[in-house]
Amino acid sequence: MKEKTPVAVLGATGMVGQQLLTMLQDHPWFYVSEMVASERRAGIPYGETTRWMVDTTLPPAMALLTLKGPNEALASPLVFSCLGARVARDLEPVLVQNGHLVVSNASAFRRNPDVPLLIPEVNPESLRLLSAQRVIGGRGGLVTNPNCVVAGLALGLAPLHHAFRLTKATVVTLQAVSGAGIPGVGAVELVDNLIPWIEGEEDKIAYETARILEAPLAISASVHRVAVLHGHTMSVSISMERTPSREDIIGAWEAFRPPGDVAGLPTCPLRPIVYVHDVQRPQPRLDRMAGRGMSITIGRLRPCPVLGFAFELCVHNLVRGAAGAALLNAELCARRGLIP
Amino acid sequence: MKEKTPVAVLGATGMVGQQLLTMLQDHPWFYVSEMVASERRAGIPYGETTRWMVDTTLPPAMALLTLKGPNEALASPLVFSCLGARVARDLEPVLVQNGHLVVSNASAFRRNPDVPLLIPEVNPESLRLLSAQRVIGGRGGLVTNPNCVVAGLALGLAPLHHAFRLTKATVVTLQAVSGAGIPGVGAVELVDNLIPWIEGEEDKIAYETARILEAPLAISASVHRVAVLHGHTMSVSISMERTPSREDIIGAWEAFRPPGDVAGLPTCPLRPIVYVHDVQRPQPRLDRMAGRGMSITIGRLRPCPVLGFAFELCVHNLVRGAAGAALLNAELCARRGLIP
Amino acid sequence: MKEKTPVAVLGATGMVGQQLLTMLQDHPWFYVSEMVASERRAGIPYGETTRWMVDTTLPPAMALLTLKGPNEALASPLVFSCLGARVARDLEPVLVQNGHLVVSNASAFRRNPDVPLLIPEVNPESLRLLSAQRVIGGRGGLVTNPNCVVAGLALGLAPLHHAFRLTKATVVTLQAVSGAGIPGVGAVELVDNLIPWIEGEEDKIAYETARILEAPLAISASVHRVAVLHGHTMSVSISMERTPSREDIIGAWEAFRPPGDVAGLPTCPLRPIVYVHDVQRPQPRLDRMAGRGMSITIGRLRPCPVLGFAFELCVHNLVRGAAGAALLNAELCARRGLIP
Amino acid sequence: MKEKTPVAVLGATGMVGQQLLTMLQDHPWFYVSEMVASERRAGIPYGETTRWMVDTTLPPAMALLTLKGPNEALASPLVFSCLGARVARDLEPVLVQNGHLVVSNASAFRRNPDVPLLIPEVNPESLRLLSAQRVIGGRGGLVTNPNCVVAGLALGLAPLHHAFRLTKATVVTLQAVSGAGIPGVGAVELVDNLIPWIEGEEDKIAYETARILEAPLAISASVHRVAVLHGHTMSVSISMERTPSREDIIGAWEAFRPPGDVAGLPTCPLRPIVYVHDVQRPQPRLDRMAGRGMSITIGRLRPCPVLGFAFELCVHNLVRGAAGAALLNAELCARRGLIP
Repeated sequence: MKEKTPVAVLGATGMVGQQLLTMLQDHPWFYVSEMVASERRAGIPYGETTRWMVDTTLPPAMALLTLKGPNEALASPLVFSCLGARVARDLEPVLVQNGHLVVSNASAFRRNPDVPLLIPEVNPESLRLLSAQRVIGGRGGLVTNPNCVVAGLALGLAPLHHAFRLTKATVVTLQAVSGAGIPGVGAVELVDNLIPWIEGEEDKIAYETARILEAPLAISASVHRVAVLHGHTMSVSISMERTPSREDIIGAWEAFRPPGDVAGLPTCPLRPIVYVHDVQRPQPRLDRMAGRGMSITIGRLRPCPVLGFAFELCVHNLVRGAAGAALLNAELCARRGLIP
Repeated sequence: MKEKTPVAVLGATGMVGQQLLTMLQDHPWFYVSEMVASERRAGIPYGETTRWMVDTTLPPAMALLTLKGPNEALASPLVFSCLGARVARDLEPVLVQNGHLVVSNASAFRRNPDVPLLIPEVNPESLRLLSAQRVIGGRGGLVTNPNCVVAGLALGLAPLHHAFRLTKATVVTLQAVSGAGIPGVGAVELVDNLIPWIEGEEDKIAYETARILEAPLAISASVHRVAVLHGHTMSVSISMERTPSREDIIGAWEAFRPPGDVAGLPTCPLRPIVYVHDVQRPQPRLDRMAGRGMSITIGRLRPCPVLGFAFELCVHNLVRGAAGAALLNAELCARRGLIP
Repeated sequence: MKEKTPVAVLGATGMVGQQLLTMLQDHPWFYVSEMVASERRAGIPYGETTRWMVDTTLPPAMALLTLKGPNEALASPLVFSCLGARVARDLEPVLVQNGHLVVSNASAFRRNPDVPLLIPEVNPESLRLLSAQRVIGGRGGLVTNPNCVVAGLALGLAPLHHAFRLTKATVVTLQAVSGAGIPGVGAVELVDNLIPWIEGEEDKIAYETARILEAPLAISASVHRVAVLHGHTMSVSISMERTPSREDIIGAWEAFRPPGDVAGLPTCPLRPIVYVHDVQRPQPRLDRMAGRGMSITIGRLRPCPVLGFAFELCVHNLVRGAAGAALLNAELCARRGLIP
Repeated sequence: MKEKTPVAVLGATGMVGQQLLTMLQDHPWFYVSEMVASERRAGIPYGETTRWMVDTTLPPAMALLTLKGPNEALASPLVFSCLGARVARDLEPVLVQNGHLVVSNASAFRRNPDVPLLIPEVNPESLRLLSAQRVIGGRGGLVTNPNCVVAGLALGLAPLHHAFRLTKATVVTLQAVSGAGIPGVGAVELVDNLIPWIEGEEDKIAYETARILEAPLAISASVHRVAVLHGHTMSVSISMERTPSREDIIGAWEAFRPPGDVAGLPTCPLRPIVYVHDVQRPQPRLDRMAGRGMSITIGRLRPCPVLGFAFELCVHNLVRGAAGAALLNAELCARRGLIP
């Protein structure tokens, strides 16, 4: 049995960081060796300074780990970044230059053409960009995963795009509160209410989805925050070049499997896309944990009189949409020998 | 001062019935003289058998009114129907034949070409159908208002259609629980959850909106139930024949006023359409009571890369979408001397 | 007609400040002349810097008022303080010394024996402390209202204490999110959840209730935050020296009226205590607006096998519990000629 | 390896039935052989007629099982009853007479002195009543578990009662919606609201707790339904004959272990009582799954100025409070050879 790789987690006290820690707890390849938080928390044991919000228990060994400050040197070759975009923009390049492989959930470098924006089941070939980075930058590197909506949307669209060529898509989201982190949206704003706007989100959805699918796809996104804890739901309408039947589309989803060396990665689900036939599904509470949170659930495929077809899609924003996305990316890097 | 007209309310114990009673409480033209409920409640005072769910106090005089059964003769010339579709289908024609003007919120006869599907500010001329009914059926008549989503959507689209000719629209709704009546959706289904489906709703939205706008409009509707008490929010994208600017569209909304004899009706708002410039609005809790619940609120007008323009719209489903819609219809009938 | 008194509002951008502004909008005696916020907002029109959270529209005239900084001199003789305790501790004494009557909702000076802790219907005589302040401090003065739970609890207990002498009380609260201000508790903490703790709250409840009732009352408080927007509900059990019947207690509540010169104040309800006989009431959504938010609602009075009697009580935390409490206090000061 | 015992589940389509099915899915001793529902569902495969509400996937093998009607003969020696009280009152005695061991979650026979009201960790000796039943009634028998609140409360009080003799307790509950079954309370009643009443609940809490603890304990219960999905929280105050310190009480909880042959049952947690030191806990969302839902979580132990000590307790109403309670009871019966 191979030795496990030590990893560092940046932004470990946030919502995504907490989720990642629970997923790393019994990971077969990685173990958490270092955690990094903001300067004012440096030197404090993780468990003492973290408002634990995930419904599994905080692993005791992790509770005792002392937090490092953002500027301390890290010993771990693999660094997970669960930082906000602003901090990530400054910190991630430094880590890359110091020779770390940074697997980031932050949005800071997702539009950088030299940085892979990776969903392993969809565009594993984008990891080639990492070699290009290394020609310039040494052994370090940066890999990003998409926004939590895109993580589900691009995965659901991928088999349709490959089989039928997408041309247009409208997506209207109903997003969970855990996507806004801690403290996020106040309860006083969401009890008996919803908010039809999330800063920067609609642009990210349009840009990142098109980039991952490598398609000149016209995407119209309209986003909403609703009183759901985990699980982003979205209502999608699509136009395609070809004219598949309803059965063709469902068939494309049901036949979809992780390609090549992605299949069998510890966090990779057997079936990344689950189609449900119950007309009342997908529902975030009931479906977000499909494939231990790594499968998206699609339902209600029906003709759309305006664009062609419409359907509903649900993705666990913290698992497939953030922590699990980064972890799966890191696993693919590990399998390909890309960890320094 | 003219004497007030006595009115009967069918389905008075339901959610829409309760809302209507509160709006009739100090009405300048009408007073509640009779209430009708299901057979098993007949003979019981209203206040004793009703689970009062509206947050204003039940008017004491109404609490004492004894409920009539569905087959008892009614003395009131004007009858409001807040019935479910199945019961309405049987009962409303009988009342019409007995010479009552039935102003109905039920969906049973909305597709009947002889029955007005009326939003006074949008298609007041549809009331002419009432005369046709009377040629056949005596002094009675039936007038309906649209579905609670359509009540807001058709109103918001009307000035755009008249100015710029709509060709296509997609609408994705986030609908409040009070729209499902009592008991409606269980809390166990909506805590930390949403449901991406409401029976029959998408068809109603497509059909009724096109009928009211008298437009061969392709409409794609996707509906969701969310944990909001009152206020349906919808994300709308539209294509138009002409190519207005953003300012043109906002201008059309802001210039919209109730036409002719509709203006000044007791329940008619001065401005049926309110445009809000705050990017985080409309929100159901904050905006549903605009114009005492009779104005819709629109915001976030922006280019839609797929269809042309996108915006968010909020309508109070119980007021503008149901009880207030019926009441305004009745007021227009009264002003035009159409009450028997 | 007397001229209206200009008033200043400190902490006008917060939840309580917003509620107070709506209540001052058409006030017969006062008008908002100045608003004060934190230094960084000084000089900005109120409407531009405030995240308006109250469901009535922000009065346009107020939206245009330019915010003053905390250290600017104020011209208004009457100053409402909706500040947090920490800022209030520094700022309120300065304003008093500058000759203002400060009517405060902050907790900073509620335990000061020279400062009235006033509920006009319960202990109007406590206003005498103001004269004592003035002997020392000139024309200025400070009047406080109790914590939002105590505002309801002490009012509900007062007629029982006077008639039957309370000896013990346990109170378990289910408190609304608007009581925590903006942003308050995150939605991520309250969706499908509750929090059994609010910092400092249990002590305030025990101390302030006993002070207002002037009783050596043993009070045990246990507090919870729940996903309700407005309206604190509490489950109360009491022991009394005398042994009234259930009817005696309900009679004491129903007979309770505002005393002397408190009755008829603009914000004073005719019946500060409403007893409801429906076994499922009081409910915050249905009962919080009783008496335009200034009446508390009590129900379910029943024998308690441990202490004597138990009942449920609901108070609108923002109206009777905060903004309305301060406003009523100011009105009593005005009626008694205590405004400088 | 012993063969598994076939079991029948009555009321399999309800909330408790669904939870029980998931817990029986990989049970080491039992397997689901028969399911019984109401007459109108008889003959239909379980998966076709059940609105699945539990967030784990419905086991496919179970989805295919054909439902039996309430009067069909059952082959399984062990029958779980997840029925409502009214149906249970008629059906359970018949099953007992037909020789089945009925392990019931229904309230119908909990007050029958010949029927064990069992929490294995607390009063395992109550199973002796089963032998008495059999003297009269053959090989069949009936065992009940307590109400979902009592399942947590009596467990939390047991070690205190044994060590310090309880005399009085007040308990105020904040109960989850899944406790009301399907459809239960409407969302329209609980969005931005709570309900301070549940029919019959307060009596059950007082009676059942005293019976299980075999104590002449004065209990005052006040119950509330809140917008939480799973997990009943309660605020408890107690008086005791002896005068333990805070440490003594926490020590009694932390030392508590399942007694004798209860320890090691498949569904029995290692530590049925978990004390949390975080002042903001227990919270239902974060703590309900302690011990896979079979451990209760207690926190905030503090002096109560009225009764002695106060604390907060959380129990998963569907697991420890219902399905898991019945399952653990059945396991104890199995270990003791009491299954026919």
